[in-house]
Amino acid sequence: MTTENPLLLALDLAGTFAFALNGALTAVRVARLDIVGIVTLGMITALGGGIIRDVLIDYLPPATFSDWRYLAVAAAGSLIAFGFGHRMHRLSGLIVVFDAAGLSLFAVTGASKALDMGLGPAQAVILGAITGVGGGTLRDVLLQRIPTVLRSELYAIPALVAATITVLTIRFGVYGIPAAVGAAVACFAIRMVGVRYG
Amino acid sequence: MTTENPLLLALDLAGTFAFALNGALTAVRVARLDIVGIVTLGMITALGGGIIRDVLIDYLPPATFSDWRYLAVAAAGSLIAFGFGHRMHRLSGLIVVFDAAGLSLFAVTGASKALDMGLGPAQAVILGAITGVGGGTLRDVLLQRIPTVLRSELYAIPALVAATITVLTIRFGVYGIPAAVGAAVACFAIRMVGVRYG
Amino acid sequence: MTTENPLLLALDLAGTFAFALNGALTAVRVARLDIVGIVTLGMITALGGGIIRDVLIDYLPPATFSDWRYLAVAAAGSLIAFGFGHRMHRLSGLIVVFDAAGLSLFAVTGASKALDMGLGPAQAVILGAITGVGGGTLRDVLLQRIPTVLRSELYAIPALVAATITVLTIRFGVYGIPAAVGAAVACFAIRMVGVRYG
Repeated sequence: MTTENPLLLALDLAGTFAFALNGALTAVRVARLDIVGIVTLGMITALGGGIIRDVLIDYLPPATFSDWRYLAVAAAGSLIAFGFGHRMHRLSGLIVVFDAAGLSLFAVTGASKALDMGLGPAQAVILGAITGVGGGTLRDVLLQRIPTVLRSELYAIPALVAATITVLTIRFGVYGIPAAVGAAVACFAIRMVGVRYG
Repeated sequence: MTTENPLLLALDLAGTFAFALNGALTAVRVARLDIVGIVTLGMITALGGGIIRDVLIDYLPPATFSDWRYLAVAAAGSLIAFGFGHRMHRLSGLIVVFDAAGLSLFAVTGASKALDMGLGPAQAVILGAITGVGGGTLRDVLLQRIPTVLRSELYAIPALVAATITVLTIRFGVYGIPAAVGAAVACFAIRMVGVRYG
Repeated sequence: MTTENPLLLALDLAGTFAFALNGALTAVRVARLDIVGIVTLGMITALGGGIIRDVLIDYLPPATFSDWRYLAVAAAGSLIAFGFGHRMHRLSGLIVVFDAAGLSLFAVTGASKALDMGLGPAQAVILGAITGVGGGTLRDVLLQRIPTVLRSELYAIPALVAATITVLTIRFGVYGIPAAVGAAVACFAIRMVGVRYG
């Protein structure tokens, strides 16, 4: 079974790429892992949210294991981060930006795919948020950190906002590239405000 | 798909409420999280055990995402705990009581739902215990604590007792409100003995 | 649904036994848990990887809950480790050996079962590795340790090697007891080199 919705696929792969960069750069900076640890953490961060989503909406096997592009994009992002991470300055800024990007994109795809699979609107919003925060939460648990979703007020909230915009625009029949991008940008902006003033 | 068994639903929602109070109060007391962190931890603790159960017995999407009452009860419990938690004394006593209540109720519903879905009796007992300890284990992992199920002798044991009573009474055709409540009360009593003398 | 492939079943049960010994001995040595904690950690370590695999390939309920031998073997291994663990010397050497054995066997069964369930070859390799590292990762997370898969270069790599040999020999029609054992031995050998010189 492949993801047939091209907009969903594009957003999903973009989120996967962002979280792969985030997870692998986090492994470089915080935990000083070797290449296997870096790529492993990158791939778990990249693929974790989507896998949790697909298990919960009964889309099994998860898209990760039915469409090769997910693994390829997650591996590419992780390897790029490994290759460049050691010589980059301002790594922590980039880590935060990629995390916010992944959060935003996955909140949108989680909500839209949940509706596709027949869940109700409130459930789809929650599932969007779970998809957005899932990969980063696995990353934090594996690195023995209290997950961002518990520590930061503006992490679950922007994901819920993006998922709500997604569900509403789908319900009102105006969902498409502009609505999806708008929802993701809204989430990203709120998250970055949270990082700045949090 | 909604949970059609009214006894199962009632016990499940009661367990959800107890674990929502427990998780959110734990967030107030132990981790001093803000409202988003408190509600998030309350909802994960409340819904985690049932989601793990439903994934393992192939009841997908989990009841959490197919029946709105689960999300509503989990959110309500978490918000109540947020509202009252800061001014309550003896918080740690309450946290333990709500945890024991959730453990007891979920051990019963986990075992009974597993039998409903065709699992064998031994498997249903184990699944009942997993359902009981699941939410609290996620809570402890997210807060970076060794889970209670590993630290305390009388945590898995009472859950196994309640699940065994449930499976036996169903098999002998005498399951109903008295048997379910009896199983939960037995678990609760053993757990509280463990807390007192542990 | 029972596992009908006898080779898969035999390797799976052997891996379950090895990880049960590993998890329970780890609980004895590292965390000094009581019997309930020891058996619980043994069973989670033994059954975790296979459960994750079966959820991801949509083989639900997992073999753990549809074939009683998994629970029996996991419980037996955990109880044996509890019975003998306290008087054994050189416990840490044994812990490492059982972990490597479980990793090797589960990498093979994960890859072969994933192909059986229709996944592509690259996905089956990744799924084999996830199956191999899954139980030990849960064990480490519950004990609050950074998982071995992130810390050690030669943990994911040998699992990927075993899974790749498995997938290739199945694809070329030469899979059987020699190929399966060869794949597991290759993984085990690489892992032990990693332990020795890591």
